[in-house]
Amino acid sequence: MQTIETITTLYLQTRQQSLQLIEGLSEADCQLQSMPDASPAKWHLAHTTWFFETFILLKHTVPYRAFHPQYNVLFNSYYHAIGQQFTRSERGLLSRPSLNEIIEYRQHVDHHIELLLQQGQLSLPILQLIELGIQHEKQHQELLLTDIKHALFQNPLLPSFSSDAIELNAPHIDSVHPLHWSAIEEGLYTLGNNGDAFCFDNEMPTHKHYCQGFQITNRLISNGEFQAFIDDGGYQNPLLWHSDGWSHLQSQQLESPLYWIYQGEQWLEFTLNGLKPLDKAQPVCHVNFYEAAAFALWCGKRLPTEFEWEIASSTDTSKAQFLNPQSLQPQQKSLTTLHSMMGTCWEWTNSAYLPYPGFKPFPGDAGEYNGKFMSGQFVLRGGSCFSPEHHIRTTYRNFFYPHQSWQMSGIRLAEDKT
Amino acid sequence: MQTIETITTLYLQTRQQSLQLIEGLSEADCQLQSMPDASPAKWHLAHTTWFFETFILLKHTVPYRAFHPQYNVLFNSYYHAIGQQFTRSERGLLSRPSLNEIIEYRQHVDHHIELLLQQGQLSLPILQLIELGIQHEKQHQELLLTDIKHALFQNPLLPSFSSDAIELNAPHIDSVHPLHWSAIEEGLYTLGNNGDAFCFDNEMPTHKHYCQGFQITNRLISNGEFQAFIDDGGYQNPLLWHSDGWSHLQSQQLESPLYWIYQGEQWLEFTLNGLKPLDKAQPVCHVNFYEAAAFALWCGKRLPTEFEWEIASSTDTSKAQFLNPQSLQPQQKSLTTLHSMMGTCWEWTNSAYLPYPGFKPFPGDAGEYNGKFMSGQFVLRGGSCFSPEHHIRTTYRNFFYPHQSWQMSGIRLAEDKT
Amino acid sequence: MQTIETITTLYLQTRQQSLQLIEGLSEADCQLQSMPDASPAKWHLAHTTWFFETFILLKHTVPYRAFHPQYNVLFNSYYHAIGQQFTRSERGLLSRPSLNEIIEYRQHVDHHIELLLQQGQLSLPILQLIELGIQHEKQHQELLLTDIKHALFQNPLLPSFSSDAIELNAPHIDSVHPLHWSAIEEGLYTLGNNGDAFCFDNEMPTHKHYCQGFQITNRLISNGEFQAFIDDGGYQNPLLWHSDGWSHLQSQQLESPLYWIYQGEQWLEFTLNGLKPLDKAQPVCHVNFYEAAAFALWCGKRLPTEFEWEIASSTDTSKAQFLNPQSLQPQQKSLTTLHSMMGTCWEWTNSAYLPYPGFKPFPGDAGEYNGKFMSGQFVLRGGSCFSPEHHIRTTYRNFFYPHQSWQMSGIRLAEDKT
Amino acid sequence: MQTIETITTLYLQTRQQSLQLIEGLSEADCQLQSMPDASPAKWHLAHTTWFFETFILLKHTVPYRAFHPQYNVLFNSYYHAIGQQFTRSERGLLSRPSLNEIIEYRQHVDHHIELLLQQGQLSLPILQLIELGIQHEKQHQELLLTDIKHALFQNPLLPSFSSDAIELNAPHIDSVHPLHWSAIEEGLYTLGNNGDAFCFDNEMPTHKHYCQGFQITNRLISNGEFQAFIDDGGYQNPLLWHSDGWSHLQSQQLESPLYWIYQGEQWLEFTLNGLKPLDKAQPVCHVNFYEAAAFALWCGKRLPTEFEWEIASSTDTSKAQFLNPQSLQPQQKSLTTLHSMMGTCWEWTNSAYLPYPGFKPFPGDAGEYNGKFMSGQFVLRGGSCFSPEHHIRTTYRNFFYPHQSWQMSGIRLAEDKT
Repeated sequence: MQTIETITTLYLQTRQQSLQLIEGLSEADCQLQSMPDASPAKWHLAHTTWFFETFILLKHTVPYRAFHPQYNVLFNSYYHAIGQQFTRSERGLLSRPSLNEIIEYRQHVDHHIELLLQQGQLSLPILQLIELGIQHEKQHQELLLTDIKHALFQNPLLPSFSSDAIELNAPHIDSVHPLHWSAIEEGLYTLGNNGDAFCFDNEMPTHKHYCQGFQITNRLISNGEFQAFIDDGGYQNPLLWHSDGWSHLQSQQLESPLYWIYQGEQWLEFTLNGLKPLDKAQPVCHVNFYEAAAFALWCGKRLPTEFEWEIASSTDTSKAQFLNPQSLQPQQKSLTTLHSMMGTCWEWTNSAYLPYPGFKPFPGDAGEYNGKFMSGQFVLRGGSCFSPEHHIRTTYRNFFYPHQSWQMSGIRLAEDKT
Repeated sequence: MQTIETITTLYLQTRQQSLQLIEGLSEADCQLQSMPDASPAKWHLAHTTWFFETFILLKHTVPYRAFHPQYNVLFNSYYHAIGQQFTRSERGLLSRPSLNEIIEYRQHVDHHIELLLQQGQLSLPILQLIELGIQHEKQHQELLLTDIKHALFQNPLLPSFSSDAIELNAPHIDSVHPLHWSAIEEGLYTLGNNGDAFCFDNEMPTHKHYCQGFQITNRLISNGEFQAFIDDGGYQNPLLWHSDGWSHLQSQQLESPLYWIYQGEQWLEFTLNGLKPLDKAQPVCHVNFYEAAAFALWCGKRLPTEFEWEIASSTDTSKAQFLNPQSLQPQQKSLTTLHSMMGTCWEWTNSAYLPYPGFKPFPGDAGEYNGKFMSGQFVLRGGSCFSPEHHIRTTYRNFFYPHQSWQMSGIRLAEDKT
Repeated sequence: MQTIETITTLYLQTRQQSLQLIEGLSEADCQLQSMPDASPAKWHLAHTTWFFETFILLKHTVPYRAFHPQYNVLFNSYYHAIGQQFTRSERGLLSRPSLNEIIEYRQHVDHHIELLLQQGQLSLPILQLIELGIQHEKQHQELLLTDIKHALFQNPLLPSFSSDAIELNAPHIDSVHPLHWSAIEEGLYTLGNNGDAFCFDNEMPTHKHYCQGFQITNRLISNGEFQAFIDDGGYQNPLLWHSDGWSHLQSQQLESPLYWIYQGEQWLEFTLNGLKPLDKAQPVCHVNFYEAAAFALWCGKRLPTEFEWEIASSTDTSKAQFLNPQSLQPQQKSLTTLHSMMGTCWEWTNSAYLPYPGFKPFPGDAGEYNGKFMSGQFVLRGGSCFSPEHHIRTTYRNFFYPHQSWQMSGIRLAEDKT
Repeated sequence: MQTIETITTLYLQTRQQSLQLIEGLSEADCQLQSMPDASPAKWHLAHTTWFFETFILLKHTVPYRAFHPQYNVLFNSYYHAIGQQFTRSERGLLSRPSLNEIIEYRQHVDHHIELLLQQGQLSLPILQLIELGIQHEKQHQELLLTDIKHALFQNPLLPSFSSDAIELNAPHIDSVHPLHWSAIEEGLYTLGNNGDAFCFDNEMPTHKHYCQGFQITNRLISNGEFQAFIDDGGYQNPLLWHSDGWSHLQSQQLESPLYWIYQGEQWLEFTLNGLKPLDKAQPVCHVNFYEAAAFALWCGKRLPTEFEWEIASSTDTSKAQFLNPQSLQPQQKSLTTLHSMMGTCWEWTNSAYLPYPGFKPFPGDAGEYNGKFMSGQFVLRGGSCFSPEHHIRTTYRNFFYPHQSWQMSGIRLAEDKT
């Protein structure tokens, strides 16, 4: 557990960071909701505040009164134990409260959380909840970015996230080293997080796992490599796809990753800086699980399991590309050794999101945080260039449905050891 | 045809009026789209401008260049002859262009239309198109109000349209005179509009119509009268409803008009001033065709045809309640004679929206304005308190699908002459 | 009103006719339900029997007990006054009762109706209900044929209705006379049915209608004429279509009438005898209202109103092609005068299905027969080669939704008198 | 690998068994398809035949010609490598070929498979394909029963599967022993199938798995125990459910297992003998994964993983209740030791259906058999009283989506070792 000073600093930085992310956005931008899976930026700002108000101020601060009697319904995401929730798919219809009112709400809650932290002598459960609230807000910072990217993409003007034309994209690189393979030995490994520092309930407890020997690629698959799959008819060959993936492909008429646009006889890619020529050496991003798995099968390889991924990640000592508001596009490194497992792009694994042996949900209302999503989703590992620093660990388990691709999700391959 | 001076004045007033309507709204409010049938206020402001730019400036002004190359797609509603249209249901996703950019667009187009009008010597077709554009914008003023009302209703805060708490609602009245019936003689009538002054193509030509004798109620049905229908189980009795209406009722689980809320053992009504106690003497509004027809059947009466309505309207000399931004709720008059056929609430008729004998669509691209909607809809007559003055005539034919109720639609009854 | 002897004969013939229609079908065929709009042949046989049992035997025969306690739910189509109805879209899931049990049910009810008729001295309302039941069954004979045609079409084997390869199709004809136009004078006409002989409530009362002068084509539009519309890009030109029609076209990806298949560089047509080369001179059939109206607009003409149609029909003295189980395909006549208004194909009119002035529904539970469908549908007139003889009159009003095309619906054109 | 004699016997018995299953059904029953997940009995009979024809006769028998040129499309389930497939959800619309024609098809293929087997000297791959075809047909025998049960349940008459009133249900038992727990030690286990005898590709290869210590219940959860969960408000408490499960519950308005009906103040259960009073001591069946998991959470327990299940199953020596056409309802045994892991009901595990380390799909076209379904589904183990004998092994992995409940799926609980 961290000290109150550390937590206070982390709290203030995190809260500040959220506001920095919307600096280039108008109030209208902040209200966009392009699909039920995504939320408006304004809603993210309010919901993360609601989290502190609901789980800490209202439960553990004696004279605190809710900032607004109806915010509990408006900004509750999915906590049934807390009460009713406003319909998820209609968050974009909340023009009121205004962005300014949400910012006042944030200031109000910040003020009271700071008062609480200044009291000192906070019990461990409260400190843990504050840290959970901070990590929760960091998760929503990443979602805010992926959601606004998706929303701007619906606009035929394909506008830029950044109003002042800052170049957010990675510098062009001419080529990338061929794939190298790192080998991992068969054996009994200990996986998961012992909870000494902050982690989510779904990363615990540590447990033994027997792993067959395997190899894993040193880097993420590039746009150019994925384009070769497209050029070879990968999207037209049902034998490469999961059955559900093929159905999804057909019903959605997919022929490339989300945000790829074929125009004027070349591939372009929508980025937070608008439409750009596709950079072939950079990592492919915004693929769903089915696309990642089909690509792997086309290569004669497979995706790693989340266990393989976690074992391999211990040998990666490269520096991670985490959230930097000045650089919001995944960037390939020029290394032949295993690298970039942390940051850059989330990596799809072939593991379903399920409880570890001995899993216990967080106590109290936070118990709804993770456990109830353990059906139908796949695990992604490692964070992305949208993930705030100090948020991701090698044991961190992200999870999405296999058809979802609006997250910063990329591909790393594995194969059985021969 | 009106003089250029009259048209210029009308143009400027109309354009100004549109902006006045959004004075109490934020940019976020102006972007709300609550359903595919409705459009954001911002979109209405842009689309009406696009109409002048597309049908007049780009077609008939030599050196004019489009304000923005993509606005033609973004703000084309349904004119296939003009080209592609941005998906109707996603208009709420256009955070860019911003409201300010739309206002600049309006100023740009206004400037050029004014230049055109100042030239004098405009050909008749151009003047007619300008007048059509003006009337088109007046239609959208009404839609802007009904659409924002619907959008604000989706917000659990049930916010007010008017930010400064102006009382928009009609003053309370204690009671209303019982219904009186006006009799109309059987005979051959001439209906429709001869087109001497502006009218839409669907109102023409004049034509003879044989009408059986009938009676019509002197006023609109009141909230109290409609509540008696509810209290008598009207929404639970399938024998009162059209088959399609009953299916709609079941699938949508309707039990009252749109905007009625039963709370604390009383009926409340959502208005542009927020939630208010239902005023029983005021006219019932926001009923769909099925509700209007079921109510009529429950009374042992029926709805008038549009022909009966038009014949009867010639005998109504009362003053109409048209759009007044300070008073945005239908208001009952205390009269025993036939009144309020014009204004207050649109009145559902039992006539399908079909062409008159000899109907000819407007020439050119404006031919898509009306004719292509002549299937599946019912005619409403008379305008409402959201209809701008100088816009509605006794021959004016509005049309909506029978399930739609977000317009200012009310009920007047008829019966065969005994 | 007819005599008891006439009614008895008509009853027995009609009941026998229904069974003849399924002679070539297996029990499995008789259970097919291809869409919610259509019903299995077995269900038609049961429902028409239920009609006699429910409206006559159970209401007007003292000691009668229902054949089976649950048939009232299973075979009630839409009569809310009678009680619950089994879900329409799941009629194909009723493998029990078996076809034999349904035939027993028919025999049981026939026996009791015959007993009733032998009593003599039946009250007028009962005789009227029996006649209504007979006409109701004739309607279902036509539906049985259109429904089984649609069901067999879903099978890639495109099987034939007739097991023993009887040639049901019209003999090939090489060509058809060009269209001729019949002129009708402007004036005041009396339309509708006075009810002296059997008619449905929706045909009454007679009433005066003022009709502008018009012309109407002497014959039905041919397959070849409709193909010219297709070849000219008619299905790709939105300006020819109603707005709802164009949406329907796009969502269903329609490019030809139902049952037309383009294969091996020629048009084929699915018939009750299976797939056949399209016969260009024969009447186009199975078009929906939108297709009929778009074709008319492409010709520079329009569809007649139902009033125009009824007026014109009085001058057609040709022999009608009604139901003949040996010949189940519309057949063009070689005449230059106005002909085939009765029989051959139903003819779409541009009239919405609405009540006549003074309309009164049938008394009692039969009041649900027609009136509640008076929204959203269009009127078709004249019957088809699937309509039983002695069932159709010039005042007969059939009605379907504008997108529906599985009925025997064709096209006759009209134009304003010049 | 088995001898040709053994395989021939198994082939003939299996083919015969399929026909026995439909002995009590009419042709109309055999055509019922109640949902896209289920298929008509007739289709099962044809598809299993198509499997032998396509994978063996057409590939490996020189002069063989397909029985019918279009059966390849009609009866291909999902093998893209084989070609097109008739739309799954419309299998109930195939009244032709008739049941007799399908039986002829079966005889034709049987004749040719027997000829092939009589040749002797068959290559190993061909023998393996024949055994695969046999096991494939056994799978479809089970599906035929679950599908017809679901189809008959849609009929308000709730008819019996067995026409001659054979009592198919388990004899009533008054009570069941309380649950006992069997403990399994932590350690490294070898799981999976080595393929010496027939098994599916998804059961291979054998591999090491480290398992934490756990306990498992000796028997299946009973109807009475599940009813206590219902009585305690289990279906109204979102905190007991997976998030997807709760959504499914809400959208489908579930309040009990499939086939339970509350009527006359008691629970009844639809069985293949029609509606019967719920037998509290018998095993609960037809629960979906969400229901199984919610029940377990309500008990403070959890579902076993498929690995735990497989380890525990090695200690169960009780006799399994497999398919017996005279007894088609799960039956509780009166034992306090671990029993009935094989047969009776499939048991939901908390394991997603994923490949084992080193998984290789079957070679050739049969490669589509299992692997492509490895996303989104959960593993069930042990077979049921609908599973044919000699079909199920302890390593057998069945898989369904978590919302599906029309299979014979029950509940066994596990917990971590304390």
